[in-house]
Amino acid sequence: MSAGQSSKGTTRGYVVPIGGGESRRRNPTILRRFVEICGDSAAHIAVIPTASKRADTGPRYERVFRDLGAETATVLPFKSRSECYDERNLAVLEEVSGVFMTGGNQVRLSSIIGDTPVATRIRTRHLEGLHVAGTSAGAAIMPEHMIAGGESGSIPRVDMVEMAHGLGLTDRLVIDQHFRQRERLGRLLAAVAANPTAVGIGLDEDTGAFIDANDLIEVVGSGGVTVVDPTDMEHANLDDEDDDAPISLIGLRLHFLIEGGAYDITTRTPYL
Amino acid sequence: MSAGQSSKGTTRGYVVPIGGGESRRRNPTILRRFVEICGDSAAHIAVIPTASKRADTGPRYERVFRDLGAETATVLPFKSRSECYDERNLAVLEEVSGVFMTGGNQVRLSSIIGDTPVATRIRTRHLEGLHVAGTSAGAAIMPEHMIAGGESGSIPRVDMVEMAHGLGLTDRLVIDQHFRQRERLGRLLAAVAANPTAVGIGLDEDTGAFIDANDLIEVVGSGGVTVVDPTDMEHANLDDEDDDAPISLIGLRLHFLIEGGAYDITTRTPYL
Repeated sequence: MSAGQSSKGTTRGYVVPIGGGESRRRNPTILRRFVEICGDSAAHIAVIPTASKRADTGPRYERVFRDLGAETATVLPFKSRSECYDERNLAVLEEVSGVFMTGGNQVRLSSIIGDTPVATRIRTRHLEGLHVAGTSAGAAIMPEHMIAGGESGSIPRVDMVEMAHGLGLTDRLVIDQHFRQRERLGRLLAAVAANPTAVGIGLDEDTGAFIDANDLIEVVGSGGVTVVDPTDMEHANLDDEDDDAPISLIGLRLHFLIEGGAYDITTRTPYL
Repeated sequence: MSAGQSSKGTTRGYVVPIGGGESRRRNPTILRRFVEICGDSAAHIAVIPTASKRADTGPRYERVFRDLGAETATVLPFKSRSECYDERNLAVLEEVSGVFMTGGNQVRLSSIIGDTPVATRIRTRHLEGLHVAGTSAGAAIMPEHMIAGGESGSIPRVDMVEMAHGLGLTDRLVIDQHFRQRERLGRLLAAVAANPTAVGIGLDEDTGAFIDANDLIEVVGSGGVTVVDPTDMEHANLDDEDDDAPISLIGLRLHFLIEGGAYDITTRTPYL
């Protein structure tokens, strides 16, 4: 069984976290690329707007994906945990080639779909080839360990970040979004310091990371992707009692990638 | 001639950049340590308040250094380039064991003392053992390449930083200050990307880097020192025409050090 293959011999789908604020009309490079991956004119995309409280979030993405040439786009409006057991909606997840999770609040999203048949179905079908994209909160929820919240600033401090249980599409990444715009490097560094088996990626707005079945990340969009590699990291005082104390942290590798750049999560190699 | 020794066989003095906002009364760890290095009760310290436009800046530090036990503290109020040729003031520089440059504006400071006998005298005497400390603007001016200004933010962009000619006490560092407080990681990364022979150090407020004659940095104070090591750095688009474009930059090493931590500039090794 090679990388990206499930026990059934199928190839895992793409994971596509997006940093929020992606262009939907003027220059929708990221969303168009997602539609292409999902089969272009044969693409069937399910939109999960659960992170958002706005009633129009789902329908707006539905229209965008149709305008970008997808054959179908269907909103699955899971608003409560009980709805995540609705067989009619779960059946839709069996049919689609891609799932798109909108922005909003990742804790709302994880507390509604987490540990329900919706989460299980997405994970299982992803291993069989389903492509999963998410923007902002929809990106944050993707990994095993999700950044639930935290403080802004570039320099890590003790207790700068709050973690929660994510969707589990990957355990090799921690993902943050609105990265440059909301000054989140510090909290990503703090998250990686506390979970040093994962690589941290920070996505600027209008920027997507297209992660293929071999765990190669390709950068698409107008912003950058910041990669924090803790392979050689050592730290001293994460257990400091003063929450606001600066962290002592050495040996981090840092990369800033823009469109055209790539990162191999397995070998931890960046490409310009 | 070993590291830190001049051609006369003398040992170079300490270089002590401070990130601004250092405690002067309540817990003056950094300034007390500087007085100790300068000879404690035998310390003779010249205060250069040129970066500041406030008339009381010099006299205030004079009092602080005397209260901390220095034998003498003398303000050398260079307010114009012509005053930097005043033999009486230059004679004082021959007598002191330490020089302290206050905060204010580093471009004001460099444009007044730069390339005058004051600058030359400080550099020459430093090689013979004179200790030189500076806070905020007084820290920024220390290296060969000085950060003159720039934009805030953690992620580097093309043209985020403006460089100017500094005092030249070291060509192995680029120094930034008020680091965490003013979100200056991005501009330090941009500065290092453009001058990759130097290591970048970003000093938080109330934090000093005590750099000895062997180029070992010791961290003192309540904040942190961020070290940016570009040894393995590669970059792609520093020449991008769009000033606001994100920079493609890979292979940076990043360390966050707190009091008790150290960094060897020669071997580029951090110590927790």
